[in-house]
Amino acid sequence: MIVVMKIGVTEEQIERVIEQLNDHGFDVHRSSGSQQTILGAIGVKPAFDPRHLQLLDGVAEVHRVTEPYKLASRSWKPENTVVQVGNVQIGGSEVVVMAGPCSIESEEQIFQTAEHVKACGAKVLRGGAFKPRSSPYSFQGLGEAGLVMMRSAADAHGLLVITELLDSAHADVVCKYADIIQIGARNMQNYSLLRVAGQSGRPVFLKRGLSATIEEWLMSAEYILAENNPNVILCERGIRTFETYTRNTLDLSAVPVVKSRSHLPIVVDPSHGVGIRNKILPMALAAVAAGADGLMIEVHPNPAEALSDGPQSLPFDHFSTLMDQVRRIAEVIGRSIPSA
Amino acid sequence: MIVVMKIGVTEEQIERVIEQLNDHGFDVHRSSGSQQTILGAIGVKPAFDPRHLQLLDGVAEVHRVTEPYKLASRSWKPENTVVQVGNVQIGGSEVVVMAGPCSIESEEQIFQTAEHVKACGAKVLRGGAFKPRSSPYSFQGLGEAGLVMMRSAADAHGLLVITELLDSAHADVVCKYADIIQIGARNMQNYSLLRVAGQSGRPVFLKRGLSATIEEWLMSAEYILAENNPNVILCERGIRTFETYTRNTLDLSAVPVVKSRSHLPIVVDPSHGVGIRNKILPMALAAVAAGADGLMIEVHPNPAEALSDGPQSLPFDHFSTLMDQVRRIAEVIGRSIPSA
Amino acid sequence: MIVVMKIGVTEEQIERVIEQLNDHGFDVHRSSGSQQTILGAIGVKPAFDPRHLQLLDGVAEVHRVTEPYKLASRSWKPENTVVQVGNVQIGGSEVVVMAGPCSIESEEQIFQTAEHVKACGAKVLRGGAFKPRSSPYSFQGLGEAGLVMMRSAADAHGLLVITELLDSAHADVVCKYADIIQIGARNMQNYSLLRVAGQSGRPVFLKRGLSATIEEWLMSAEYILAENNPNVILCERGIRTFETYTRNTLDLSAVPVVKSRSHLPIVVDPSHGVGIRNKILPMALAAVAAGADGLMIEVHPNPAEALSDGPQSLPFDHFSTLMDQVRRIAEVIGRSIPSA
Amino acid sequence: MIVVMKIGVTEEQIERVIEQLNDHGFDVHRSSGSQQTILGAIGVKPAFDPRHLQLLDGVAEVHRVTEPYKLASRSWKPENTVVQVGNVQIGGSEVVVMAGPCSIESEEQIFQTAEHVKACGAKVLRGGAFKPRSSPYSFQGLGEAGLVMMRSAADAHGLLVITELLDSAHADVVCKYADIIQIGARNMQNYSLLRVAGQSGRPVFLKRGLSATIEEWLMSAEYILAENNPNVILCERGIRTFETYTRNTLDLSAVPVVKSRSHLPIVVDPSHGVGIRNKILPMALAAVAAGADGLMIEVHPNPAEALSDGPQSLPFDHFSTLMDQVRRIAEVIGRSIPSA
Repeated sequence: MIVVMKIGVTEEQIERVIEQLNDHGFDVHRSSGSQQTILGAIGVKPAFDPRHLQLLDGVAEVHRVTEPYKLASRSWKPENTVVQVGNVQIGGSEVVVMAGPCSIESEEQIFQTAEHVKACGAKVLRGGAFKPRSSPYSFQGLGEAGLVMMRSAADAHGLLVITELLDSAHADVVCKYADIIQIGARNMQNYSLLRVAGQSGRPVFLKRGLSATIEEWLMSAEYILAENNPNVILCERGIRTFETYTRNTLDLSAVPVVKSRSHLPIVVDPSHGVGIRNKILPMALAAVAAGADGLMIEVHPNPAEALSDGPQSLPFDHFSTLMDQVRRIAEVIGRSIPSA
Repeated sequence: MIVVMKIGVTEEQIERVIEQLNDHGFDVHRSSGSQQTILGAIGVKPAFDPRHLQLLDGVAEVHRVTEPYKLASRSWKPENTVVQVGNVQIGGSEVVVMAGPCSIESEEQIFQTAEHVKACGAKVLRGGAFKPRSSPYSFQGLGEAGLVMMRSAADAHGLLVITELLDSAHADVVCKYADIIQIGARNMQNYSLLRVAGQSGRPVFLKRGLSATIEEWLMSAEYILAENNPNVILCERGIRTFETYTRNTLDLSAVPVVKSRSHLPIVVDPSHGVGIRNKILPMALAAVAAGADGLMIEVHPNPAEALSDGPQSLPFDHFSTLMDQVRRIAEVIGRSIPSA
Repeated sequence: MIVVMKIGVTEEQIERVIEQLNDHGFDVHRSSGSQQTILGAIGVKPAFDPRHLQLLDGVAEVHRVTEPYKLASRSWKPENTVVQVGNVQIGGSEVVVMAGPCSIESEEQIFQTAEHVKACGAKVLRGGAFKPRSSPYSFQGLGEAGLVMMRSAADAHGLLVITELLDSAHADVVCKYADIIQIGARNMQNYSLLRVAGQSGRPVFLKRGLSATIEEWLMSAEYILAENNPNVILCERGIRTFETYTRNTLDLSAVPVVKSRSHLPIVVDPSHGVGIRNKILPMALAAVAAGADGLMIEVHPNPAEALSDGPQSLPFDHFSTLMDQVRRIAEVIGRSIPSA
Repeated sequence: MIVVMKIGVTEEQIERVIEQLNDHGFDVHRSSGSQQTILGAIGVKPAFDPRHLQLLDGVAEVHRVTEPYKLASRSWKPENTVVQVGNVQIGGSEVVVMAGPCSIESEEQIFQTAEHVKACGAKVLRGGAFKPRSSPYSFQGLGEAGLVMMRSAADAHGLLVITELLDSAHADVVCKYADIIQIGARNMQNYSLLRVAGQSGRPVFLKRGLSATIEEWLMSAEYILAENNPNVILCERGIRTFETYTRNTLDLSAVPVVKSRSHLPIVVDPSHGVGIRNKILPMALAAVAAGADGLMIEVHPNPAEALSDGPQSLPFDHFSTLMDQVRRIAEVIGRSIPSA
């Protein structure tokens, strides 16, 4: 914590601030220039609210100087985290592709998709069984029946399963079928759900909230890590801005920023990031070029008939093309996407 | 739905779009000018995703023309909703003030606060027992013990109780003590929690998400209303923008906008909106001047010692001053805040 | 400047940073805790770019601790600035209303408007002669002929004149007719225009840019003040956010924030802030309740026929009602709007 | 224009809206369903403000259906624009790199930089002589003396020159030395400057404003195109969002969006987009992968000593590495960056 005192404060006001900082357990170092005094408060007190100091007489500005997260920070763990799930490593030299429909709709749909994405080199099958929909009148997912279908389809083709945990009450059923638990963007700050996911012991795939700063996102990762679950995978999926020509603004600079601030792997989801099919290929290429550890892509055998997010789902042939091109981009930057 | 066709499309392309619209149950009216064709699709299909049409050949733009919410809209219910809780009416001619600490910390704290806010004219006691904190290392609330204290304090002073429901698992215990159930900003799109709140039968106080559009906020209200619970109170508490001198940007224009789009009452929370004590008074006055049906204000007997959000809590004397001034503003616009 | 060193840095790295700070003329105070070192660099060097330090080895974070503006800050000038123009004081106890059409269109239009707004208590006549339009095909204003009409209308009714300076090339002609020079939101960072406005010696009315932080806005004021022109009036007119139901989001919290950071008066323009007529009244009331020193309101004898911004212009009867109500709000907070 | 009438409007209200539309020159087609009436107004009237209709009785919503720009749109000119400057083509199969210092500081600096960037494959030398600085106390550029140095350096190494036009008053001097005229982000809506740039006949490089939508950006391009200057190059350089870990958020999805909406070439400037050196390489790779027609990169012989933007400038060795890698990415997507 750095406390900048106003010009012309009294010695008494300075001492009152020092006293408060001492009371909260900080060591205080005082720097007085000819005009202004600055107090450096050293110590890590994540629960301290710096606004307390802003209200004291004579205080001009208060700056927090330690990151509010610890276990998620690269200063705490300098080497990259590689999340091992079955025989797949996320955060290693391979770029891992997770693909599948927005919602699981039928056995035929999920088996066809599993077969195709596997053949193209994907390692993880994605699909939703419990769907968060902004309208209460929209399709809400098949529930456990969907998870059974997805598990069989993944097993038949040697894929891992990732699916969203939407509610603590579904934790047992989701853990029964999933290899990786997804926390959706809308739940990024649903702290009780983060704790449940952390306690599950499964790797957790944490999507960035629509308007979450990278700092808040890493603090949500901290909730999971604090449950002694080191396997957190971050996922950038677009943030909300003033622009209306795209559904969201995919923030690819989050990739290098996360890699400098944190040791956790980061995956990019261009399907939600741009929200319309014909912009997904260029953004997938860009994500890999920017250094993403993986991609999550919505794929559907017949997007025009999809029960949710059809317009941002790729048909099979588009997905094949995408995989060919991202594989070549990965090679340019010294990574790989092995063929099936 | 309005579909604008590109200049120079073929008759076949137009017919293919009309066919799709018919398949989804829309009545289609066609307007062809000398250069361009526009298709009007009439019918309310809240589950239809307009992006489906954007991908068809020849389509230039697609506009949704019906609001995606129904029960929350003023076109569905033209007269104002007045939520009756005990002998308090929210959305009527009185401006209702809800006040109390961020977190319930002790019997003494909550009783003192209840006595003071009642004496100033507040009608509802606020206080958190289960706290959503961005750091896992911060104070998380007293739980049910806190609710017991708040209920006693409210009963002793003839106040109603409002508290946040953070997790479906707490629904029973929260309903045992609370008159109004609050859904926090971070949970505005936690749809399973919205359903549980709706099913509780209690009035629901729905805070606007940090980056939720007014449309999304009204769609979240729709989730509660769709559970046959007509008693929804909206609460504006600041949105996220690029500005950093304030914690959030309090969007007071949401007050007249909500009143034209919806029949639901709207309360303003300036404490979270600006996040620092000395800006709360002017924003509370402004909120009432803009037409808010109520205010939610954080008050604490000793903000410097508060376990959470002390910097944005008002001490008792500031709250007395605030109540005097908002009462006079209310009178100017033909409303009232009766004395205790 | 505060420089926070990484945990585990070498003594040599610390010394290299101190050396750099000394080279740039800062006094450096060093605070070393058991784990971490913080360097306080004291001195005001507005041209120093703190990112220089971020790239040095061993540096974790850099915080600027002095405001980047000086003449605009309240720490430099603690008492309020009151801008005197003719017999009108802006920033004193009166709330000053500036009203008139978006564009000057004809003698009849501007004389009728001047008469009406004067009768209601406005002190300044607004109107545009050179219009910045987002489309090159829209009406661009009457130019000097419009200014002649507005000056006559103002003189006939004892009003001051405010109009926008859009281009340095128009400075002479605008100064010939205007009492107050307006810099529009799109030009808030047009630094050569700011200098010209400052050199004119006329009071300058500086609108906040659509996405300008309050800090950037005050730095633009600094450009004018640095030309030895102390008469700057700030104007909040709405910022860009993700919300689409309003044209902009009127940031009323800017009023108390500006008043704590700066000594300059601040006016609110709700017409541009919300962009549609039926939301202007509540936001004008809210602005005065929040402490604004003035209002700028678009008024037109026949908004349906206006050549620009008709939809956000008030017809005469609406403006009369607005003036009656804002006058009563002003009285509640100890200010006044004298009748004509 | 589409006008959606409220449910339950009278025939008279509908007729009044039709009459207004006819008065403004639109052809009106009426679609009446069992509950609701929709009016389609066909005709291109760029100067018409749709908010006029919103205020009429019975109107629920108004949607503009034609793009507000014409010459900039791909529907008006389906084939890509390739801007030819000397022997360089921007918008063709080559990815064109523009590189150089933020500010021209000395002969030695600009000659060294020209030699190095040319050797790496850049085609255009960038550098500022008139600098827009947020502080009036910062270095403001060398003016014409700087332009003389840059022109000589470019000529000595067979490079083109791009520099910013900051003020209409500098147009002649800038045109004397520059091959391409840059309009900076802060001036994107400085319409008189856009007109002057358009009239110069030189190709214009139009940076996106910090908070400009893509639509507004294309409308600013329209101002230049409307002066009969077809040679407009767009440049994405980061937009303002709530994120604070990066200076701006580089919006790479603007690349495919612009390519679908417009025929104009688009270049990406990752230096301003992320604002700190060590994030520039990944974002440059990503930009080319996303389909950018060029890159603008800040390069300086000794960034630590740069008078402006040193922290986001690349030293020579970093720039060499960047060029090697972007060249390989370009090849993957079927484009090229020829060696010098």
